[in-house]
Amino acid sequence: MAARLAADPCGTIKPMSTPASSLFVPALRAPLLVTMGDALGIGPEILCKAFVAGAMGDAVVIGEPEVLLRAMHLLPVAQRRPVAAMTAPFDLADVPPGCLPVVLPRRRHAGLHELPWGQVRAEAGAAAAGCVEDAVAWVLDDRQGAAIVTAPIHKEALAAAGVPFPGHTEMLAHACQQRGYAADERMMLANDELRTVLVSVHCSLRQAIDRLSIEAVLSTLRITHRSAQAFGLPTPRIAVAGLNPHAGEGGLFGDEEIQLISPAIELARREGIDARGPYAPDTVFMRARRGEFDFVLAMYHDQGLIPVKYLGVEEGVNVTLGLPLVRTSPDHGTAFDKAGQGVADPASLVAALRMARRLIGR
Amino acid sequence: MAARLAADPCGTIKPMSTPASSLFVPALRAPLLVTMGDALGIGPEILCKAFVAGAMGDAVVIGEPEVLLRAMHLLPVAQRRPVAAMTAPFDLADVPPGCLPVVLPRRRHAGLHELPWGQVRAEAGAAAAGCVEDAVAWVLDDRQGAAIVTAPIHKEALAAAGVPFPGHTEMLAHACQQRGYAADERMMLANDELRTVLVSVHCSLRQAIDRLSIEAVLSTLRITHRSAQAFGLPTPRIAVAGLNPHAGEGGLFGDEEIQLISPAIELARREGIDARGPYAPDTVFMRARRGEFDFVLAMYHDQGLIPVKYLGVEEGVNVTLGLPLVRTSPDHGTAFDKAGQGVADPASLVAALRMARRLIGR
Repeated sequence: MAARLAADPCGTIKPMSTPASSLFVPALRAPLLVTMGDALGIGPEILCKAFVAGAMGDAVVIGEPEVLLRAMHLLPVAQRRPVAAMTAPFDLADVPPGCLPVVLPRRRHAGLHELPWGQVRAEAGAAAAGCVEDAVAWVLDDRQGAAIVTAPIHKEALAAAGVPFPGHTEMLAHACQQRGYAADERMMLANDELRTVLVSVHCSLRQAIDRLSIEAVLSTLRITHRSAQAFGLPTPRIAVAGLNPHAGEGGLFGDEEIQLISPAIELARREGIDARGPYAPDTVFMRARRGEFDFVLAMYHDQGLIPVKYLGVEEGVNVTLGLPLVRTSPDHGTAFDKAGQGVADPASLVAALRMARRLIGR
Repeated sequence: MAARLAADPCGTIKPMSTPASSLFVPALRAPLLVTMGDALGIGPEILCKAFVAGAMGDAVVIGEPEVLLRAMHLLPVAQRRPVAAMTAPFDLADVPPGCLPVVLPRRRHAGLHELPWGQVRAEAGAAAAGCVEDAVAWVLDDRQGAAIVTAPIHKEALAAAGVPFPGHTEMLAHACQQRGYAADERMMLANDELRTVLVSVHCSLRQAIDRLSIEAVLSTLRITHRSAQAFGLPTPRIAVAGLNPHAGEGGLFGDEEIQLISPAIELARREGIDARGPYAPDTVFMRARRGEFDFVLAMYHDQGLIPVKYLGVEEGVNVTLGLPLVRTSPDHGTAFDKAGQGVADPASLVAALRMARRLIGR
């Protein structure tokens, strides 16, 4: 079994000896699993809207039925559907048509549907985290889930609940590692015109610089290359962004390109990975958008997310690479300021469902 | 007379006591001055194309006539125009119609037009820097220039020539300071949908973080506010981006938002500046694009430039704020890989000319 890694959100990354994707074959006839997210955000509402729009297909929600029922009441009367509570994803076969199928969480949280919308509450954070843990268990332990799509959670609610992870990605990685799987996870943000993979995610910008290493870039290149092949791109062209303005301008503005990024690219190329760069960060995304590259490796969170989100978050999808399961999510948050008003847009969730199906070949 | 500042490209920034813009009234009937840029890049070619397209209007080039003549020969025969050499911008009145007016540099560099295109050469760097110095002298000393538009230079060629500045902005600031003007310069990038002002520019990302301060953010807010008023926006809405992912997520991912950025915003608001934020960097530019803000303050080079350039560099314009003169430029570089082929696109230069005219009220 592959080695476990410390759950350090931005930490030192060791090269993987075994491709994680080879360790697990998804249960292809099992439903997609969609976690409800923070009960007080827009997650339950966009789930209901996606269901009414016919975008859920064979997906089932993991969440509290009352929470989904309250969200259903944000929709116009004619669009509302009943909610069917189930104890396992495979119960989907018994759910009457037209009912939103909801799998009960293993650890229940009563009364969430009576809390006001748009607030940071520990109970909501704990319930959201529980649904994610359940989803991993259904996929990896029970083989009753083919892939996971996660609705938005709120980091402060997680923290209030004592959940020791800053986000979904780290939580999922930990759950996979607990089961003995290698989980060297990376966040990919994708829309119709750009795919960006992040070397580091949820840490300060200073930490992102401190933790940059040849290994971090190289392992991200390997994961990106391998994942791209799984997505049907046998020889992906991967551009690597520099860290500094103008990719360091030959050492004038920082030497991470010379000391860390270029050596990692060279090592990757020796392994047959079509890695290129480092390129000036301010133009590499535009070049990828025009078709010059299939993926861009971003050195830190905002470098990669600013261009993906610039044209609008509606079509952006977050894909976790390097896990033994397929996981996608919308690339927006809980939008507490809009929660409970019936105005949330399900487009990014619908795109995440579509991406998850594509990744498992449906 | 205003205090001089050390020529530190990213250094500590002191609040200005006197608005620089009040110190100088441009010579409104003088021509626009366009520097030729690096003779071996695409600068001369896009100047010729802009002239042939009728976009130069009353602008004159400052550069070596032979360099412009060689560039003219990159155009189809039917489009080529004669080059008229002049000794001062006001000689424009004597230039025959249809001739590209070129003011001779005060220090000549012979033979540049015989060097191969697309190379880093010290002579080309020195000549490019000389044209910029001339332009400042024509505007501030001789009052024969109304505004400056600069064609691209190459930083390595400047360095090879021993020019102690990493770019135009710092070079212009120094030239203004030598004349006793306050020059607390900031780079603004603008296109039709987004205006971004950078707190720091040409330094490593690590230095940009180290040098972030309340004063740096506050002085940039003041310069942006004052410049916006000069541009005709009496109460500009200025969004301030955070430094860290999610603007620090309440201190979880870095504390610069709490320690530096928020206090600067608060101080600016007390001065009547409509400063807002700090906002999550990955969505603030998208929000500005949708019309929520007039300007976005970016904490470092790539944070601001990635979104401006993402949709293409053709329409982007670089505007220098905080100088006693108006200066714009295209937001692309010398493009050595395309130089000498006749394929360069003058669109960004044309946009820079249009922006300069707008800023001086023509």
